[in-house]
Amino acid sequence: MAKINRLSGFPELLPSGRVIEQHILDTAREIFELHGFLSLETRSVEPIDHMQRNGEIDKEIYVLRRLHATADEADPGLGLHFDLTVPFARYVLEHAALLEFPLRRYQIQKVWRGERPQEGRFREFTQADIDVVGKDTLAFHHEVEMAVVMSTLLATLPIPRARLQVNNRKLAEGFYLGVGAADTQGVLRVIDKLDKIGPDRVGALLETEAGLTPEAAAKCIALAAICTPDATFVDQVRALGVRNDLLDQGLSELSAVVTGANAERPGSVVADLRIARGLDYYTGTVYETQLVGFESVGSISSGGRYDNLASDEGQRYPGVGISLGVSRLVSILLAKDLVSASRAVPSAVLVAVTDELSRPASESVARRLRERGIPCEVAPSADKFGKQIRFADRRGIPYVWFPATAADSTEGDTIKDIRSGDQVDADATNWQPPLDDIKPRVFATPDSSAASKESW
Amino acid sequence: MAKINRLSGFPELLPSGRVIEQHILDTAREIFELHGFLSLETRSVEPIDHMQRNGEIDKEIYVLRRLHATADEADPGLGLHFDLTVPFARYVLEHAALLEFPLRRYQIQKVWRGERPQEGRFREFTQADIDVVGKDTLAFHHEVEMAVVMSTLLATLPIPRARLQVNNRKLAEGFYLGVGAADTQGVLRVIDKLDKIGPDRVGALLETEAGLTPEAAAKCIALAAICTPDATFVDQVRALGVRNDLLDQGLSELSAVVTGANAERPGSVVADLRIARGLDYYTGTVYETQLVGFESVGSISSGGRYDNLASDEGQRYPGVGISLGVSRLVSILLAKDLVSASRAVPSAVLVAVTDELSRPASESVARRLRERGIPCEVAPSADKFGKQIRFADRRGIPYVWFPATAADSTEGDTIKDIRSGDQVDADATNWQPPLDDIKPRVFATPDSSAASKESW
Repeated sequence: MAKINRLSGFPELLPSGRVIEQHILDTAREIFELHGFLSLETRSVEPIDHMQRNGEIDKEIYVLRRLHATADEADPGLGLHFDLTVPFARYVLEHAALLEFPLRRYQIQKVWRGERPQEGRFREFTQADIDVVGKDTLAFHHEVEMAVVMSTLLATLPIPRARLQVNNRKLAEGFYLGVGAADTQGVLRVIDKLDKIGPDRVGALLETEAGLTPEAAAKCIALAAICTPDATFVDQVRALGVRNDLLDQGLSELSAVVTGANAERPGSVVADLRIARGLDYYTGTVYETQLVGFESVGSISSGGRYDNLASDEGQRYPGVGISLGVSRLVSILLAKDLVSASRAVPSAVLVAVTDELSRPASESVARRLRERGIPCEVAPSADKFGKQIRFADRRGIPYVWFPATAADSTEGDTIKDIRSGDQVDADATNWQPPLDDIKPRVFATPDSSAASKESW
Repeated sequence: MAKINRLSGFPELLPSGRVIEQHILDTAREIFELHGFLSLETRSVEPIDHMQRNGEIDKEIYVLRRLHATADEADPGLGLHFDLTVPFARYVLEHAALLEFPLRRYQIQKVWRGERPQEGRFREFTQADIDVVGKDTLAFHHEVEMAVVMSTLLATLPIPRARLQVNNRKLAEGFYLGVGAADTQGVLRVIDKLDKIGPDRVGALLETEAGLTPEAAAKCIALAAICTPDATFVDQVRALGVRNDLLDQGLSELSAVVTGANAERPGSVVADLRIARGLDYYTGTVYETQLVGFESVGSISSGGRYDNLASDEGQRYPGVGISLGVSRLVSILLAKDLVSASRAVPSAVLVAVTDELSRPASESVARRLRERGIPCEVAPSADKFGKQIRFADRRGIPYVWFPATAADSTEGDTIKDIRSGDQVDADATNWQPPLDDIKPRVFATPDSSAASKESW
């Protein structure tokens, strides 16, 4: 276990876990920037009333108060943000005059929710979001793009296969209207419980709480059972015999996302008509993602199209976005030992020190290596060389450098690969380690990778 | 101005400012990793009583409370951390059994202080810290190393010259004991006000509040006036005629830091005996850093040696660290327009779209460029090419790619450098932009750089 968790819900990683998280964050940033998303951060706090208007999860907000706030000090009503979408929408509205639209941004930050911690669910966690927001309008093809970019990222990471499931709010809402539902949000909320309570109890709730006929309830449950790796879901929905214009639009959009994303990245996306998403603000495509074999932990990447989140008087900024739950993903990877790193420290080389008087000579070697981009550190004390080698070994540092002053019988510097034991002459102005050794490598743990492949 | 500030003390950057901040964070990380510091993060919250014990700034803490906390819910007494040193010391104690010492770590995170916002002083801001912590002991040479690493970072950044000032707590405390002070902390607190209230009022306070004789007070003020670019401060201190063993140790240590750091990086460090630092936990070397020409904003990089912060029954973890105030530095750079970026978006290429039907062809070009590490985006709409070129121009994207389907009379793809207007044939499988164009470049603003050079 690379994680210790003394304050429930506020996870902290050891160096061996952090190097894996860092690799995921670096890869996310690289993929996002390759796709032209610029980096933004928003402040960590938002007015509570703004979050309550847009979030529907007010009970989870952490409120801030200055420890020594005076009694007459007005309470500014600030809380820590619980996601990155609501703050980004506020940012867009606030700074719109100085932004270029459509705005493509990624945002990697911590968010906080005061809910009960459980597996994969934390009170403080890191998300990596991309969104595209337009002024007045936003072309539909961005709803395809979100799925393509996230599926590219997930396929680039050294993790088990991820299953990106897509649905469409218009499809569901149109269908519910088509079977005669008066409160489509209410139907959606009940359908969202399918995984938890099963179809029988959902059917009963659809009748008692959402006022559907038994026949209509059965059709809603049948709709949620439809899941296809291509656009064949359209025929299956049609076969249920429900007709509605909004449903048609939803079918057409979902069909375009599944077909378009799979054309770009074959097999990357499935249409899953059970996906509902908890938040009210989505209006079109919605995304969820399961890590195959670890579905119980919940979605590791979610998002959707929102037409009304960043809008004020007379000006609309429709958007679409998708978020990677970095902390949840990392917690699965570490708990199941799915990913490993060649080392936790950046140093590729430990420069040995013969005695404290010759430390400047060792520092000089280190300086010349760093000038050529080779991370290294100088031994903290002039212990016996065997002890300095063990110092490197315990940290996974692959090379130990012995400056000339340290040489036993040779005249120049030598470097030892402590994995093979090979020791050769070396010059700090031109010695170069293999590319693979310069930075810590992060890779699927050999055993678990084999195991996962079998189950794919 | 690239910054808008609607919630006082919680700054947010526009894309043009964020790209500069990101460059500073990337450079810090690069320099830290080249020197063998591993990345760690601590949770954002700490028990309030722990922060009060170690921080002396309890009034500035933001306390957390769940918005809908029930009346019978025990208050967990958590607050947002106000720096990265106190949380790191707690992390070391908590996880010591699983860490290798000496531990070299960097930590780049936001911190929060509920104090009144003013120039360069925020309620939420980002710090970039390095620390080395040993078990039982920590070699003195790490106190030299901190100055060298930070001075290397500051010299690598495209910013005005920074002046790293070093002092030593033992030197000051020993001197104060030597002139007969009973409360050395009290003397230190008064001396810390020199910049604000001047030597006359400090002299008076040293007599009334710290109980010094007029002669002793004068000597303390004379000590604070000593500032040398080398070890000659030793003779100046000796000339004041004060004798004390702790003073001798401080003189020897400070001398070693100034001499050692300037041997590694000539002219990087000055001994400035006025530097006091506000926090109680420093026990040896202390660091502060002024940006030359912008001293009024305060220190942009501070730290020191702490022997007792991360210690519990029977086990001590002495450390030394230095912190870069990223938000403060960025706020100066943006307010004074000292640093510029070639563009705010990552895209080096905008792939034009002839009509929506041929969008997949444009996506295919983009995919092939991305495979070779060239960031790009596809035009959001199939507008007239003139409009697509202006889209790129407004964002600083240097190249527009026209897929073959878009060609007027030629047969293959073409690419246009919209700065020069040059348009040439290109193949997405091998076209390569100049290295300088692949990522946004961040550099000292030409005008301001010339101006600063004159004043250096």
